[in-house]
Amino acid sequence: MDDHGIALPLSPALRWENDADGPAVVLLDQTRLPAAETELACRDVPALVAAIQTLAVRGAPLLGIAGAYGVALAAVRGDDVEAAAALLADARPTAVNLAYGVTRALAAYREALGERGDLAAAASVVLEAARELHVEDARAAARMAGHGRGLLRELVPGDGYRLLTHCNTGVLVSGGEGTALGVVLAAHRDGALARLWIDETRPLLQGARLTAWEAARFGMPHTLLADNAAGSLLASGQVDAVLVGADRIAADGSTANKVGTYPLAVLARHHGVPFLVVAPTTTVDLGTPDGGAIHVEQRDAGEVTHLPVAPRTPVAPAGTLAYNPAFDVTPPELITAIVTENGVASPVNGKTLAALVDAGA
Amino acid sequence: MDDHGIALPLSPALRWENDADGPAVVLLDQTRLPAAETELACRDVPALVAAIQTLAVRGAPLLGIAGAYGVALAAVRGDDVEAAAALLADARPTAVNLAYGVTRALAAYREALGERGDLAAAASVVLEAARELHVEDARAAARMAGHGRGLLRELVPGDGYRLLTHCNTGVLVSGGEGTALGVVLAAHRDGALARLWIDETRPLLQGARLTAWEAARFGMPHTLLADNAAGSLLASGQVDAVLVGADRIAADGSTANKVGTYPLAVLARHHGVPFLVVAPTTTVDLGTPDGGAIHVEQRDAGEVTHLPVAPRTPVAPAGTLAYNPAFDVTPPELITAIVTENGVASPVNGKTLAALVDAGA
Repeated sequence: MDDHGIALPLSPALRWENDADGPAVVLLDQTRLPAAETELACRDVPALVAAIQTLAVRGAPLLGIAGAYGVALAAVRGDDVEAAAALLADARPTAVNLAYGVTRALAAYREALGERGDLAAAASVVLEAARELHVEDARAAARMAGHGRGLLRELVPGDGYRLLTHCNTGVLVSGGEGTALGVVLAAHRDGALARLWIDETRPLLQGARLTAWEAARFGMPHTLLADNAAGSLLASGQVDAVLVGADRIAADGSTANKVGTYPLAVLARHHGVPFLVVAPTTTVDLGTPDGGAIHVEQRDAGEVTHLPVAPRTPVAPAGTLAYNPAFDVTPPELITAIVTENGVASPVNGKTLAALVDAGA
Repeated sequence: MDDHGIALPLSPALRWENDADGPAVVLLDQTRLPAAETELACRDVPALVAAIQTLAVRGAPLLGIAGAYGVALAAVRGDDVEAAAALLADARPTAVNLAYGVTRALAAYREALGERGDLAAAASVVLEAARELHVEDARAAARMAGHGRGLLRELVPGDGYRLLTHCNTGVLVSGGEGTALGVVLAAHRDGALARLWIDETRPLLQGARLTAWEAARFGMPHTLLADNAAGSLLASGQVDAVLVGADRIAADGSTANKVGTYPLAVLARHHGVPFLVVAPTTTVDLGTPDGGAIHVEQRDAGEVTHLPVAPRTPVAPAGTLAYNPAFDVTPPELITAIVTENGVASPVNGKTLAALVDAGA
C-alpha cells in the first residue's frame, strides 16, 4: 500500500525476505531468462555482489534498490557495514543508481548509529531506508504509468493501440513496473493494447530475451522484430506510438538511450507517429546542457562480432572491427513528449523539463 | 578478357572446371564462410542441386549462372539434360534468376540438338551459353562499378570516402564483382576508400558473415555495426554515402531490397547523405507499377526468435511471434540515384529508369 492507501505494484525482480534461514535479498535470476524463472537468494553481501556482476540483477533503478538492501543485509547480519557498502558500490562502477542506493542506505545507517549507538536499531533503520527507496521507485513507476496512459488517450484515437518499444524497461529494471513498459502495461490493463511490437535490440537482445518475457507474463499481445524491420512496420501504418526509456536526459531534453532509439525517433517523425520517452526525473541531468555534452561509451567489439549468448560463436571473420556504441542521443525536437512521475513535458525543451524537475523538489 | 579486350574480373564464388576427374562446377562453399574457405566441386547435377539448397551457392545473379552451368554439366556428362534442367529449376522455386539461367541454357541446348542432332556438339553449345551468361553478368558488374565510381566522384568531395552498406552485394552473389560492393571495390582500387561501414544485417547476418569476409579479402578498411547503430553513425557525420543493392525495382523506381534498407534511406535523407541503389537493369520489373504492387514475403519467425547460426539456440520465450519481412520497399523520392550497367538514373522516376532499360534493349 502506498501513502494514498492504494496497493502499489512491486516488481517480482527483487524482494527482501527473512525466513528460517535468515535474511536475504531474493532476486529473479535474469541471466536464466527467458529459458527459466529461477529465484536466487543472496544471504550475504559477497553473494549479492556476485549477482550484480553476473547481471542476475540489472537495470538502473533496480540496481539502486539492490544496493540499498545490500547495505541493510550486512547490518541485519551484523557484518562490517562500511566494508560491505564499499564492496557493493564497486560491483559495477559505472552504475550511478547503484552508488546512489548504497550511499543513501549507508548515510541512514551512520546517522542512526551515531544517534543511538545501537547496532540492532541502526540495522532496523537501514532496512527501513532500503524499503523506502524501493517504494519510492515503485510509486514513481505507477505515476509515470498514469501520466503516460493519459497522454496516449490524448494522442492516439480509439482504444486498440499498437505500440512499439525498444530494449527492456519494465519490471525487470524497476522496483515497480518500469518506465515505458509500465505505460504499455497500464494500457493493457485497460484493454486498450492491440499489439506490443518489440524490437529485439541488438547487440544484447534485451527485447527478445527480457521484454518478450515480460509481455508474455502479463498476457500482452506481442510480436518481436529485428530492429531494422521497424522501418517497414512504421511505413505500413501499423504503429500508433513509439515508447522508450532513457539512460540520461540532458537539460535541453536530449535523450541518451539504448543504441537504436535515435533511428526509431527519425522514422517516427518521418511517419508522423508520436515518439514518447518515459523516465523518472532522477534521469534528468541538469548539469549536462545538451546532447553534444553526453559522452557515448563504446562497448566491446565482441558483442557484434560474436553471438550474444553462449556459446559465443564468432559470426564475422577473426579480427573484424566493430562500431558498438552503448547508446545514442535523440534531440528534443524529435521527441513528442517526456513522461515523468511529475507529469509530461511537451513540447520538450529546457523550460518544460525544468518545470517537471522543480515540481518534485 | 571481355569483348573490349579488357581483363574482366570474375567472381571466385563459382567456376567451370574440367580436370582429370571430369567436368565440375566448382563453388566456394558459402555455408562455411567466414570460418573457412573451402571449395566444393559439384560433379553431377544432384550435387549442384544440393549445393543450391544448402545455400553453399546463393545470390540472385550467381544462382542464374550456376543453373546454366548445371545444364551444361548434365550435357557434357551425357546425362538426361531435360530431367537435369527440371531438377535445377526446382532447387529453389522462388529464385527467378535460377530459373532464367536454366531456361536460357536449356533453350541453347535444344536448339543445337535440333539443328545438328549431335549430343557432343550440343554439349559444347550449352557450355558456351553458360559461359556467355557468366561473362555477361561480370561485364554488367564492371560497368555498374564504373558508373557508380563516377557518380561518387560527382557526389562526394575529396577522395577519402566513408561508405555504408547493407547485406551482401559483392563477389559472392555475382559472376563478377557484384553491385553496390563492386562500386565500393572500384573506389578502394583507386585508393579513395577511407572506410567501409558494414551493417551486420539481421536476421541472417549476411553483412557480418559475408560482406566483412569480402572486405577483408580485398584489403578494404572496414568496420561492422549492428543495424540500429547506423543512426548515430550517420548523425556523427561519418558516412559520405550509403550504397545498397536491389531485389526488385518497380517501374516508378520503388526498390525492394533486404529488410533494413528503407530505414537507412530515411536516415540518409534526414542527414543529407546520398543514398545509392546499384543493380543491373534485369532487376527492373516494368510490370510492377510501384512499391505498393510489390508483395513482401514474410519469413519464418525462427530467424528472429532463434540465433541465426548453429546451434540455433532460442533467444526469446517459446511461442513468441515475429514480424520478419524478407525485404522492405524504399520509395523513389528517397533514392538519390539508381546505378545500372547502362548508366545512372537520377532523379529516380519512371522516365529516367525506362530510359536506362531501353538503352540496353
